Amino acid sequence: MADLFWPGDHRAGAVMSDEAFLAALVDVENAWLAVLVEQAVAPASAAADMTALVDHTDAATIAAGAEKDGNPVTGLVALLRSRTGGDTARWLHRGLTSQDVLDTALMLCLRDALDTLGTQLNAQVQALAGMVAAHRYEPLLTRTLTQPALPGSAGLKFAVWLGAVLDAAETLDCVPAPSVQAGGAAGTLAAATELTGSADAALAMSAALAVKLSLAEALPWHTSRARLTRAGDALVTCCDAWGHIANDVAAGVRAGELAESSGGGSSTMPHKSNPVLTVLLRRAALTAPALGATLHSASAASVDERSDGGWHAEWAALRTLVRTTVVAASQATDLLTGLRFDAARARSNLHAAEGIDAEQQAMAELADRQPAATYSGAADQLVDAALRRATAYLKET
Amino acid sequence: MADLFWPGDHRAGAVMSDEAFLAALVDVENAWLAVLVEQAVAPASAAADMTALVDHTDAATIAAGAEKDGNPVTGLVALLRSRTGGDTARWLHRGLTSQDVLDTALMLCLRDALDTLGTQLNAQVQALAGMVAAHRYEPLLTRTLTQPALPGSAGLKFAVWLGAVLDAAETLDCVPAPSVQAGGAAGTLAAATELTGSADAALAMSAALAVKLSLAEALPWHTSRARLTRAGDALVTCCDAWGHIANDVAAGVRAGELAESSGGGSSTMPHKSNPVLTVLLRRAALTAPALGATLHSASAASVDERSDGGWHAEWAALRTLVRTTVVAASQATDLLTGLRFDAARARSNLHAAEGIDAEQQAMAELADRQPAATYSGAADQLVDAALRRATAYLKET
Amino acid sequence: MADLFWPGDHRAGAVMSDEAFLAALVDVENAWLAVLVEQAVAPASAAADMTALVDHTDAATIAAGAEKDGNPVTGLVALLRSRTGGDTARWLHRGLTSQDVLDTALMLCLRDALDTLGTQLNAQVQALAGMVAAHRYEPLLTRTLTQPALPGSAGLKFAVWLGAVLDAAETLDCVPAPSVQAGGAAGTLAAATELTGSADAALAMSAALAVKLSLAEALPWHTSRARLTRAGDALVTCCDAWGHIANDVAAGVRAGELAESSGGGSSTMPHKSNPVLTVLLRRAALTAPALGATLHSASAASVDERSDGGWHAEWAALRTLVRTTVVAASQATDLLTGLRFDAARARSNLHAAEGIDAEQQAMAELADRQPAATYSGAADQLVDAALRRATAYLKET
Amino acid sequence: MADLFWPGDHRAGAVMSDEAFLAALVDVENAWLAVLVEQAVAPASAAADMTALVDHTDAATIAAGAEKDGNPVTGLVALLRSRTGGDTARWLHRGLTSQDVLDTALMLCLRDALDTLGTQLNAQVQALAGMVAAHRYEPLLTRTLTQPALPGSAGLKFAVWLGAVLDAAETLDCVPAPSVQAGGAAGTLAAATELTGSADAALAMSAALAVKLSLAEALPWHTSRARLTRAGDALVTCCDAWGHIANDVAAGVRAGELAESSGGGSSTMPHKSNPVLTVLLRRAALTAPALGATLHSASAASVDERSDGGWHAEWAALRTLVRTTVVAASQATDLLTGLRFDAARARSNLHAAEGIDAEQQAMAELADRQPAATYSGAADQLVDAALRRATAYLKET
Repeated sequence: MADLFWPGDHRAGAVMSDEAFLAALVDVENAWLAVLVEQAVAPASAAADMTALVDHTDAATIAAGAEKDGNPVTGLVALLRSRTGGDTARWLHRGLTSQDVLDTALMLCLRDALDTLGTQLNAQVQALAGMVAAHRYEPLLTRTLTQPALPGSAGLKFAVWLGAVLDAAETLDCVPAPSVQAGGAAGTLAAATELTGSADAALAMSAALAVKLSLAEALPWHTSRARLTRAGDALVTCCDAWGHIANDVAAGVRAGELAESSGGGSSTMPHKSNPVLTVLLRRAALTAPALGATLHSASAASVDERSDGGWHAEWAALRTLVRTTVVAASQATDLLTGLRFDAARARSNLHAAEGIDAEQQAMAELADRQPAATYSGAADQLVDAALRRATAYLKET
Repeated sequence: MADLFWPGDHRAGAVMSDEAFLAALVDVENAWLAVLVEQAVAPASAAADMTALVDHTDAATIAAGAEKDGNPVTGLVALLRSRTGGDTARWLHRGLTSQDVLDTALMLCLRDALDTLGTQLNAQVQALAGMVAAHRYEPLLTRTLTQPALPGSAGLKFAVWLGAVLDAAETLDCVPAPSVQAGGAAGTLAAATELTGSADAALAMSAALAVKLSLAEALPWHTSRARLTRAGDALVTCCDAWGHIANDVAAGVRAGELAESSGGGSSTMPHKSNPVLTVLLRRAALTAPALGATLHSASAASVDERSDGGWHAEWAALRTLVRTTVVAASQATDLLTGLRFDAARARSNLHAAEGIDAEQQAMAELADRQPAATYSGAADQLVDAALRRATAYLKET
Repeated sequence: MADLFWPGDHRAGAVMSDEAFLAALVDVENAWLAVLVEQAVAPASAAADMTALVDHTDAATIAAGAEKDGNPVTGLVALLRSRTGGDTARWLHRGLTSQDVLDTALMLCLRDALDTLGTQLNAQVQALAGMVAAHRYEPLLTRTLTQPALPGSAGLKFAVWLGAVLDAAETLDCVPAPSVQAGGAAGTLAAATELTGSADAALAMSAALAVKLSLAEALPWHTSRARLTRAGDALVTCCDAWGHIANDVAAGVRAGELAESSGGGSSTMPHKSNPVLTVLLRRAALTAPALGATLHSASAASVDERSDGGWHAEWAALRTLVRTTVVAASQATDLLTGLRFDAARARSNLHAAEGIDAEQQAMAELADRQPAATYSGAADQLVDAALRRATAYLKET
Repeated sequence: MADLFWPGDHRAGAVMSDEAFLAALVDVENAWLAVLVEQAVAPASAAADMTALVDHTDAATIAAGAEKDGNPVTGLVALLRSRTGGDTARWLHRGLTSQDVLDTALMLCLRDALDTLGTQLNAQVQALAGMVAAHRYEPLLTRTLTQPALPGSAGLKFAVWLGAVLDAAETLDCVPAPSVQAGGAAGTLAAATELTGSADAALAMSAALAVKLSLAEALPWHTSRARLTRAGDALVTCCDAWGHIANDVAAGVRAGELAESSGGGSSTMPHKSNPVLTVLLRRAALTAPALGATLHSASAASVDERSDGGWHAEWAALRTLVRTTVVAASQATDLLTGLRFDAARARSNLHAAEGIDAEQQAMAELADRQPAATYSGAADQLVDAALRRATAYLKET
């Protein structure tokens, strides 16, 4: 999968593609059918592995038919019934509602994306820890409000980025584990209870579905969507962190202190070497916040036992936000692993800056002592702290 | 094209699909090549119709390669060169920069979408004018802050919707006509000037490109993006209007006064007849504002002679907003043309409402006269005004 | 008025302050009372100038009481009745609903803000035209994707800004003229019709109110809010333009080519001269798009004859957006009128850039001629065009 | 404090008012001065309690002066110096930068707001647990996509709300504890190190500041803003939950099943009893997501050692989001504690719904048994689970 409007989209591969989503929908129906049979609600004759019955060639048909009922599940169920027949056709999907299947499939897709993000963040932490170590004491001008501020070091700059990435990783760790949804038409498990003759048995089926799909158990959350917005917010937070880093790289590239490993070319200017990954990361950071807000607006529109539009507004926004974040994650890893630091240029820019020792002199005068040999403050301690945090993170993940 | 995450997406057909975008990019290169030859900048031997050289099977390759330079144009130009050769390969794209081609292609796509929207709005105005006439004097309870307010009429309710649609149409009419972009690497037409030996000749080539593509002429707008945000804002305004109507339909459906022509089914509840178009229109209205805001954020990030992320953030946001709006337009037309009004139920709801004549009595007492036979105020005049406005609009378009 | 969280807020003075809003609400009640008397609906004894009856010391009380009915008008009307008595108390507000008064007061505030913005944009156009003329041929490096691109000129850079400001001004000119709202409880003018005995007389009162307040006439727009979102979108578009300019200034300040007339100080670094206006303009551009989106979300939530939250969501968002824009307008004027261009530094940066003549050489080779003496393309024509547009704008406004 | 544009604003009292913010800024300077003296960096003669030196009458002056340096701290420090003199004037603020003071003050304000929210959520959980118990078995029609779905109960409806509020409370619990910021000009604690002669001593001062202000310790986070966005996201999540409940109340009020304890009046319709709290909660839910997105956009704009606009964009957005949430929290508590449920009307609506037993019959037929006496599924278990979760929450908080 690739998107002509979003260079780099291919990096997300099949993540939340139509095909992956369709496969996830089938996985849910398949797992539920197995639960029905295992719990002896459906007869053994209903058992079937439906995984291969639907493939990517069905996606467009189901998508086009999805408008009739407002979601793709009813059409998928009809298709599965037509391709199975007998007891399988008779029993599949019984006890579930469309929203159960769709929400659980979204969670399967989300889980995979969160795994991918974890891997990328891990790689970034490693890369940054290496960069910190490699350039720890190399001088670099600090800037505030665009202007030269104090002497600093490349090590501390990279340690700040490391902290930002670890903050993002920590935010991601707080996202509730993706969970099943199996509440039936009105979130009461009424159909499953009727089928099994017992509410406890119905709840056990929901739990069994979770086990089968390696998702967390959950009571119905048809109209309580905080688990989606929390995931969305964490994804946006990741994009924020990479946006921050990309801004610093862009400023460093302007100043000649940093360069991407290999720049992008121009269709007309042969000399150009553009910081393309940087630019594309800034793009992601510019667009992610609005997608997160859309998930909140959708959540806040929840009403009744199934929302009249709020639910439907979530799917594509989540898809786009997930793919945006997964692409950006991969680009950020590449950016960091390939980034080049021009120590000579950094040193020369530092020396050219005027007045950046003024604060030190004022402080030394105030303290009534000679200015110290350096003005690096607690940079060493801050770098160590960031590295310790990185080590702890890498140990845990 | 259809999107499993956005039921109804197929209604937008190829509008701003990867394929349509690729075709538009080729159209721009093709038209520019023709201009180069016509203006005798390139030799006659360079002339070629490249339209058929690239087709939808190339979209994925170009998309995947687009990350290298940050946009798909450089890859497309290389492909076109490899498939032409000779003077054509030597001359195509000369004088342009990637952004020229991409922006102009976006404008071609936008123009087509605006045309489609105009057609849909026209159909909606016709449908609503018919609804107003058909139900002009049928009683309908008005409600404010969810509560019964005063007696009203279906005619006035539909006239309000008609006004909202006309407001949207008027907003769309204020969008600057989609225009070419042909500024070259830094927006100065330097390459075209060098090729032709004259700035005036270079500007004439930009104008000729506009004519050839049926776009408006424009001086370079690489970093002045108001023409894009104005289009985006108008699209959002359309979605607002349909969202407003959908909210009223949802409330009317709850009250039993309105019904969609044919409701959507449930995967488990056989009795359901869901107002699916209404729900999907509310979905569009929930998501469009954030997309419009993204275009503004991107525009506000403009910098230098080509933006370092702001430009790249626009493409997908515009694509999604355009498709969202085109789908919603078509759904709104269907909703309105099929909407059923239950006059008996409306009358019964009106009669059941308590206290809705209290205001009239207070006013009559104040004016020291007997309450008038009806309390419809200027509804008749307001309906007439809406119909006149509709007539004027239909005459103009 | 000043806001500790928004440096520069004092520049907006009383624009849409609580006090200004309260005064506008009183203006509307006052004007309507005059209309009631003039049209002989209310007796001459009801006539009163209520302007001085309410002042800023009442704002907090009315604000605190506004929650009871969901808006401040009911409380204001009660206050006015308690401070007038007799026929005035008996007749004031009759025929209106709270939304009429509040919406019309918003429009009065908006009109004043639009006037202020027009004045600022005019000053900016003048300043920029002067800058273009003053630095027309001074060399300045162009940059794309953060990297050196081609030789350029300060004149063209400023002409691009001029174009962006003119685009914003043009967008503002497309905003529908602020208008009255006088629909009564359900938007039907039922109360006014009952009071006058004639719908035409009721409509004439709405028109008379418009005249008295120097607003445009309008049929009721209680739930059709495009006139508000169009204003909001135009305000955001202005902030986009200043954000674009501020980004360029920030980049120019980093490169030493530009400086604010007097920079801001640091609480600890004596040498700093920060581009504060630039920073604060970027701030406005970062926050405005979300405010515009909120107005759209509110508009899209319209329902019934008065919205159940959508209407209420507009007021503060509009206030904040208006003040943000008015402050930014004034800051942008100051930034531009005081901006310093370091021609020597610009020239030196240009000379230090490598490869920026590569495109010209490629083009000259292609055209089989010697490279021209300069590579400024149509810069001269583009500058002239921008100046012509500025002249036309200044003539019209 | 009250805001004429935001009815109910007075409920937030002084939370993040200019006055509260100014007091917090002074608290930070005061605590830092104490730390300087306690750690023997400043002489004992510098000790002073500056709390009373600045009061709310200074807010406007400092606000108006804040533009000069881009933030209010430099002006405040000058004021404090002018009102103290001697060693106090000489030593106060030394070692800090403006951002340290402002960020820490924001955190103090945020901490207070989070405490208030915790109290409100606790009250809501109690109220909802009571509502669940009181109406546990009272029949209530469930609805999906606006249409009658299955039989349900008021107890389950309220249990769903309880779950949504507990989700919000859980999200709030995940917000990182508000922390100090004390990094100095470039986030390196260079000035504090120079003053103390030791980086460890400088870090100890930062820790001491945290203790003194009852904030969490933290290494400098000048440009890593996830702690702010995480707080913002949690606030939006709270507003989402109340918005969801308000939507349900609005639908219930339309259906006659629910009513606010006392409705709001109309300025012209004497019979109206409007669900004002519901409307105002919907308002908050419509506006909060965009404010959260603004915090993300600002965070993503981080650059250098102090951002050139991103930082400045946070303050007012956070203020508005905090006040919006605190007001909504209080309104939601009142809404829930006063909500009236009309059991007779709910029963009558349930009986009037057609076809809502169709699913049960289909399931019973499938299971080949007689339909059970009720079709409430696992409602009892779900209600119990919600109550258990409420009990656990109330025990912990």
